[in-house]
Amino acid sequence: MVQSFHLKEADALRVDGEELRRSTVALFQKLGVSADDAACAADVLVMADLRGVDSHGVSNMLKTYIERFGDGTQNAHPDWKVVSERASIANIDADLGLGIIIAPKAMEIAIAKARDTGVGVVTVNNAGHLGMAAYHAMLALPHDMIGMCMTAAGASVLPTFGSVPKLGTNPIAMAAPAGEEEPWVFDMATSIVPVNKLHNAHRMGSTLPPGHIADAAGVPIMEPVLAPETFNLLPLGSTREQGSHKGYGLASAVEILCSMMSGARWATQLPRWSFRHYLAAYDVSAFGDIDEFKANMDGWIRELKATPPAPGHERVLVAGQPEHEMFLDRSANGIPLHNQVVDWFRTTCAEFGVPCAI
Amino acid sequence: MVQSFHLKEADALRVDGEELRRSTVALFQKLGVSADDAACAADVLVMADLRGVDSHGVSNMLKTYIERFGDGTQNAHPDWKVVSERASIANIDADLGLGIIIAPKAMEIAIAKARDTGVGVVTVNNAGHLGMAAYHAMLALPHDMIGMCMTAAGASVLPTFGSVPKLGTNPIAMAAPAGEEEPWVFDMATSIVPVNKLHNAHRMGSTLPPGHIADAAGVPIMEPVLAPETFNLLPLGSTREQGSHKGYGLASAVEILCSMMSGARWATQLPRWSFRHYLAAYDVSAFGDIDEFKANMDGWIRELKATPPAPGHERVLVAGQPEHEMFLDRSANGIPLHNQVVDWFRTTCAEFGVPCAI
Repeated sequence: MVQSFHLKEADALRVDGEELRRSTVALFQKLGVSADDAACAADVLVMADLRGVDSHGVSNMLKTYIERFGDGTQNAHPDWKVVSERASIANIDADLGLGIIIAPKAMEIAIAKARDTGVGVVTVNNAGHLGMAAYHAMLALPHDMIGMCMTAAGASVLPTFGSVPKLGTNPIAMAAPAGEEEPWVFDMATSIVPVNKLHNAHRMGSTLPPGHIADAAGVPIMEPVLAPETFNLLPLGSTREQGSHKGYGLASAVEILCSMMSGARWATQLPRWSFRHYLAAYDVSAFGDIDEFKANMDGWIRELKATPPAPGHERVLVAGQPEHEMFLDRSANGIPLHNQVVDWFRTTCAEFGVPCAI
Repeated sequence: MVQSFHLKEADALRVDGEELRRSTVALFQKLGVSADDAACAADVLVMADLRGVDSHGVSNMLKTYIERFGDGTQNAHPDWKVVSERASIANIDADLGLGIIIAPKAMEIAIAKARDTGVGVVTVNNAGHLGMAAYHAMLALPHDMIGMCMTAAGASVLPTFGSVPKLGTNPIAMAAPAGEEEPWVFDMATSIVPVNKLHNAHRMGSTLPPGHIADAAGVPIMEPVLAPETFNLLPLGSTREQGSHKGYGLASAVEILCSMMSGARWATQLPRWSFRHYLAAYDVSAFGDIDEFKANMDGWIRELKATPPAPGHERVLVAGQPEHEMFLDRSANGIPLHNQVVDWFRTTCAEFGVPCAI
């Protein structure tokens, strides 16, 4: 929900989301991506920035994507194909297309299948990174559907009791429509934090809370520690006593549904730029009355928000609420980008001969 | 995975699973349940005992079920109905039928739909408790399918920063077939532990690890504490810093998929005996080659098990492994039941005029 590591305003420039998007579209086009796909890719990245998910926005991801197009590990013109299909499911070989471009197309297929049969599930293998998973889940919302998105990534997380990373941070995202309330939007890494947040924390010299990482031998570090450059990430739960077998199990569930179910192998057997995805849509009106569903969502969300807070806390939040509040703020006041990121972005625009809007 | 609170052998009698099952079937029949349904109900309970999930076996659940049939909050002859249906989904009104009896029927529908369309999803509202969620997910395994089961329960878990319970322990279970390895079987409460484990811990005078419960004001207790009789349960993650918003979000996801999607209201708006369920089956062969899937599952499971352990640990486990090992042990050597449970079971059999096999 809320982000752990914030920029100091003095280190940052506020940039307009629309301007950032325009330059990002142009950069993707220079990388050989079609105009439509470039618009889609930029939208995924800038939406992450607008929602405060800096770990998955332009500042953290665009550089990697540019590198991967450059070294050929990502394909700007993927010949992606549905390789297996039934009334409610499809499996896609993405031909090393970037996930931020392929996942929305896969979600469209899931939504169409859900409209026909009640639910649609689409797996994607041989793909690139898909950015903020919630973006794709949220594509179901305008259709009055529940959306889900999971992605299996390279090994960075220790299994419980283990000393070698075997699983990705494998996020799970889900979005459900409401009536008058904002949609419920949930997006969690099954590790304590995503890898990119740790990189951000290291860059900013932040201290990590207890239970975020293990030492080199695999022992969970249960006191605050300065964010190191390299790390063994812990699964949600941190230690066995506090439930790390659950985070480990959730990461495994994501691996099975995204990788093995799509015919792919698993984290340690694949190059780090190869991701596997799972997208699903549920047509709420197939199960029952959509207006009743939305009224119940509203009532439930309002009751959660009205929960009396524990001492030391101001309010109880629901999933997606901090990101929506951030979206309103950043849409009005701009996205704070670290000065180093602004420099890099301007230099990159110049290198590619793209007018820099920020 | 492994159970936290074990019986001392001196306090327990080892009983034969088959004998326990026979008497349990007879008890359900005396309660008015049909022979087929009684066999199903007993199988769910005894399988939990055999797998070491004592919190959801005969000792913990049967007494409650008998009370609920007795006071009419559970219906021995439910007129359960599919109230909404599409090619891949169904929604069932269980007419207050017990979940351990209705959920396997719902899973059969999900499996049939998955065979036709690739995936099947069945929601159940107005139902009773469904026991060990993994049981129902595992029903998909003989069909070479992945099974999933979630259930939304009465409010016992605090939302992050909250002081009043708003969510159930809302478990998520998933089972996936393998080839030569045992199936991967995962079953987690989205709270730190299920309610029943805390009752067990209290009964046995056990000490709870840090982060299992909050004090009356909602503040997480982060040191070991003697298991109290009443408690505020914490979501997985325990504190915001260690990710309790993720456990809270997962519990919320289960509430949405089980309750609101099935047309029901939510935890605080329903009587405690009313549960909402979600069952799903994925036909793996619709996505790709089943033999390749199983070979990949085997390879992945073997690699996880072979992970070098961190200092102080003997081995890395996979989900379902401790339960399977327990199943082998208890199938051969009997199920240890606390002496008080044995006394209660014998008395109950006598009251209902059922020959007691244990």
